[in-house]
Amino acid sequence: MTAQNDSPAPAGPAQDGPAQDGSCAGEPAAQDPRFAPVAALLENFAAGDPDYSAQLCVYVAGRPVLDLAVGPHCTPDSLTGVFSCSKGAAAMVMGLLVQDGLLDLEAPVAGYWPEFAANGKQDITVSQLLSHQAGVLGIDGGLPTSHYLDSELGAGQLAMSEPLWIPGRAHAYHALTIGVLMEELARRITGERLQEIYERRIRVPFGLDFHLGLAAAHEPRYRDVLHPLEAPPLPFTDPFGHLGIAVNSAAGFDGPGGRTHNIIDVPNAREVREAGIAAAGGTASARGMARLYAAASTGVVLPDGTAAGPFLSEATRAALSREQVFGIDRASGLTGAFGIVFMKSQPRNDFGSWRAYGHDGANGALAYADPLYGIGFGYVPARAEATGTGSRGGLLSVAVRQALLAG
Amino acid sequence: MTAQNDSPAPAGPAQDGPAQDGSCAGEPAAQDPRFAPVAALLENFAAGDPDYSAQLCVYVAGRPVLDLAVGPHCTPDSLTGVFSCSKGAAAMVMGLLVQDGLLDLEAPVAGYWPEFAANGKQDITVSQLLSHQAGVLGIDGGLPTSHYLDSELGAGQLAMSEPLWIPGRAHAYHALTIGVLMEELARRITGERLQEIYERRIRVPFGLDFHLGLAAAHEPRYRDVLHPLEAPPLPFTDPFGHLGIAVNSAAGFDGPGGRTHNIIDVPNAREVREAGIAAAGGTASARGMARLYAAASTGVVLPDGTAAGPFLSEATRAALSREQVFGIDRASGLTGAFGIVFMKSQPRNDFGSWRAYGHDGANGALAYADPLYGIGFGYVPARAEATGTGSRGGLLSVAVRQALLAG
Amino acid sequence: MTAQNDSPAPAGPAQDGPAQDGSCAGEPAAQDPRFAPVAALLENFAAGDPDYSAQLCVYVAGRPVLDLAVGPHCTPDSLTGVFSCSKGAAAMVMGLLVQDGLLDLEAPVAGYWPEFAANGKQDITVSQLLSHQAGVLGIDGGLPTSHYLDSELGAGQLAMSEPLWIPGRAHAYHALTIGVLMEELARRITGERLQEIYERRIRVPFGLDFHLGLAAAHEPRYRDVLHPLEAPPLPFTDPFGHLGIAVNSAAGFDGPGGRTHNIIDVPNAREVREAGIAAAGGTASARGMARLYAAASTGVVLPDGTAAGPFLSEATRAALSREQVFGIDRASGLTGAFGIVFMKSQPRNDFGSWRAYGHDGANGALAYADPLYGIGFGYVPARAEATGTGSRGGLLSVAVRQALLAG
Repeated sequence: MTAQNDSPAPAGPAQDGPAQDGSCAGEPAAQDPRFAPVAALLENFAAGDPDYSAQLCVYVAGRPVLDLAVGPHCTPDSLTGVFSCSKGAAAMVMGLLVQDGLLDLEAPVAGYWPEFAANGKQDITVSQLLSHQAGVLGIDGGLPTSHYLDSELGAGQLAMSEPLWIPGRAHAYHALTIGVLMEELARRITGERLQEIYERRIRVPFGLDFHLGLAAAHEPRYRDVLHPLEAPPLPFTDPFGHLGIAVNSAAGFDGPGGRTHNIIDVPNAREVREAGIAAAGGTASARGMARLYAAASTGVVLPDGTAAGPFLSEATRAALSREQVFGIDRASGLTGAFGIVFMKSQPRNDFGSWRAYGHDGANGALAYADPLYGIGFGYVPARAEATGTGSRGGLLSVAVRQALLAG
Repeated sequence: MTAQNDSPAPAGPAQDGPAQDGSCAGEPAAQDPRFAPVAALLENFAAGDPDYSAQLCVYVAGRPVLDLAVGPHCTPDSLTGVFSCSKGAAAMVMGLLVQDGLLDLEAPVAGYWPEFAANGKQDITVSQLLSHQAGVLGIDGGLPTSHYLDSELGAGQLAMSEPLWIPGRAHAYHALTIGVLMEELARRITGERLQEIYERRIRVPFGLDFHLGLAAAHEPRYRDVLHPLEAPPLPFTDPFGHLGIAVNSAAGFDGPGGRTHNIIDVPNAREVREAGIAAAGGTASARGMARLYAAASTGVVLPDGTAAGPFLSEATRAALSREQVFGIDRASGLTGAFGIVFMKSQPRNDFGSWRAYGHDGANGALAYADPLYGIGFGYVPARAEATGTGSRGGLLSVAVRQALLAG
Repeated sequence: MTAQNDSPAPAGPAQDGPAQDGSCAGEPAAQDPRFAPVAALLENFAAGDPDYSAQLCVYVAGRPVLDLAVGPHCTPDSLTGVFSCSKGAAAMVMGLLVQDGLLDLEAPVAGYWPEFAANGKQDITVSQLLSHQAGVLGIDGGLPTSHYLDSELGAGQLAMSEPLWIPGRAHAYHALTIGVLMEELARRITGERLQEIYERRIRVPFGLDFHLGLAAAHEPRYRDVLHPLEAPPLPFTDPFGHLGIAVNSAAGFDGPGGRTHNIIDVPNAREVREAGIAAAGGTASARGMARLYAAASTGVVLPDGTAAGPFLSEATRAALSREQVFGIDRASGLTGAFGIVFMKSQPRNDFGSWRAYGHDGANGALAYADPLYGIGFGYVPARAEATGTGSRGGLLSVAVRQALLAG
């Protein structure tokens, strides 16, 4: 096997015909025997658990090589909440702003957003902010759901807030606020909502079934995220501790059945997925996720049959995927590794080479590009499950890479 | 529940009457049903182990809400060694010096203590020194006990010493020397012993049964710290390794029964608790510890019945409790989190919100203020036990916060 | 026991007579009863496993106090591959260059090696480079074995390479490239091969059976490194992940039986040990390793019977052994601690005091100096085994120190 450098999509007309919005093209898995072991692993998960249900889609060099759904709870074109995988889609918009020369990653945030300078935050750079180093984890009493749905409200409160550590001295995953912060940056720079930019410049032109803001027309394909059948009791999380603040524990969320503290319920509220909040409100199929990363990184065949190169330039992808921070997360006590918003592969969360960039979600969903392999990867379980090295998504990622290495 | 911001003590006359030196007022636990589950947890510990014995005292908003003692080895007003909880009391004196404008946390230590500049230590700031970043863990051959008792002698040796790492590149808990360093700073700045400042400005006026230097009159209430009944054999600790130097392993200590390497014996030597060495020589009841943190953070009702605001200003408390360092401790290999001397709550040692500040002790004692809840907390076991998340002290801290969240 | 500061070798004629190249002098273990427990521990390992075989040699204050071999696979004067212990021998050459004033640890690498400045590496200092902070872990597709054997070729590729992280923001063990980098620095500065400098200035004059480049005359004493009898299946290591790149996984190595990905085979290839690649191609006996560290740190009795002081000055040893970095290794996720090339003792790998410096190898070999004890230590198992705290080498190191502490 030879490692593949960024592989542009083939320039000629696509053999498989144009990919449609909301689908991969055909049944490619059956056509490429290299990936049979990956399909077998997914089938094996299903064989061991009649309730298990998930989608898996993999692009290589800009074309789908696997497009599968197993189990009773999803089909290849059903949609569900993908939680923090949403951050990856939103980060693509940050990338466009960088590429357009509108956003300088090394500039102070306050240059774009003057109010943000309050309470000792005047020197925080965009790259620090977007790599979880700013300490803007949340507000002591939590934010109401309305302040995420209309993130200008949330941003106003975060701008005034005191960082939870001296900026730059630590990092902790900004599980919810990084979405508000990205949305506010986009609004300040362009006057447009991040979700609108995503829809107009990324989702529609590339025909992606990965939505930041699910239109009513797609609602019939939405399936609620299912709760784990057996969840061990969680240890107490202080709502005013780092982790509790990061997950808005003091205020909770307006879920479909009323106020909830369980993150799994969040996208099941129509308002959340309609707003498509950048932190955790995206809805997607595995097809949509794999295609997004392929479109950004290798290019894909467009719905009209023409081949498009990657929508992020090599320089932009390098700027986004360059690791900004690695170390022990101040809130969780576990190692974290981040570029600009995107997660980087690391021992605790092995999803690819050192050049890979992506994001997982609280339900075990996983989406990434690995430029060294030419991979665009999407995995979405119907029922929330584990994340990280050794999880089902992680094992499928390993299997894909092993298939390419063996091939 | 609404999180409570720093709650000053009620300005009017106290219903419970004036708190006496050495006691909480009355039996408040029985009066506030919110905290019945906390009392039940403590009783449950005692029910499961006839030897278990401990004190627990909790202030909320400046008034005691729990004041308990269980088991055969202590009463609510007995005193015992509280080991590194002593550092919290000593740190309050550092806070007064900051508040008085005598100590600048960002200034070089050598500005106050010129001899300290030796051996590459000239640029170490006070905040680095007081947050375990200076590398002044000890002396290769250890310090004799006399150099802790008369810390001017110990400070002279530390001033000459070579730091164990390039200052600022790592941190490790200065288990013993941070006391000597605080004492020397106080002496250089004021000409007075740290313990005298503490006695005059904090312990006596606020009526605290938390002593840095136990007067003969209180000796009858002292109970020896009891050794664990079953202690697993410890792995070898090189006396010249980081950890061994930090615990003075090469020289040991003059304990009550002669020379010892077991830290548990240290306060049981009359000389140590009489000197009240800042690192580990304090003696207290849970009442004293809870009241100290309440007096600093929320204010308390004084012995004469008047209400006093917190003796540390909001700015001083912010300066002391702002986190200076988080990361892997160079000596122990475990995560550490420190403000100015004070421990910060973290996954491995959950005792409160991100604004909480306090300190635990080698015997499992725990004392802290949590300004977000208005808590002053003190827990003292009679027999040495575990520290950190999941320990008895840690579980009682969780129970107190849960009671307030439910209330 | 009193800790021993750097103890020069005795100035008078040596009682034991001159040490010969390739041997310790006589059977000193039997003569110094303090170390009987160490010998007993080694014998105990052998008694518990008839296949176990290893060499152990310990110098104290410049004289051998233990010189043992047990089991069927080695004698005291057999040689085998010592993997990354080789880095310690190569680092001694770096030390000579520093001592000669030819290498400034705080200067940019590019000052000595202009091509290295490519791809954002222009500001990396020598001390960063030599403490695993530069991010020059390897090349995406791996280096052919020929580029290690003739490291000028490898260095050319590394000079052009893109660092795997922003230099200075992380560290990860440069398992193979640190050898290429040391070799290139030596070549650029002196025009001579590192191995030639080592042979001429260190190995021959001090009579060391620790070879960077095994001459044909010594080949009859070489024994292949033996594979572990039972090796658990390893988890997938992405050849393009940090760890995979660090161990050259994409290209593998030319082993004695053809291409291999198993590091254990590497020195068993004659070409590798003949070249004596600085990263992992050294061959030694425990005698040679202990004597190297003694010669550097305390001095030894020379083959001609005269006593020589340490070949590194106290200032050079301080510069080399001063810790440059401590933290979580970006590739392995485990804590790492490094001076200039040398490993530092830490909780996960306890081999000595805070002043100790040394290196272990992938086969469980361990070699170090501990100036606080006056120790030069060498341990070489015949069959690859574990490293770190609690390994056989680690336990023998503890036993030696306990013997000195008790004595």
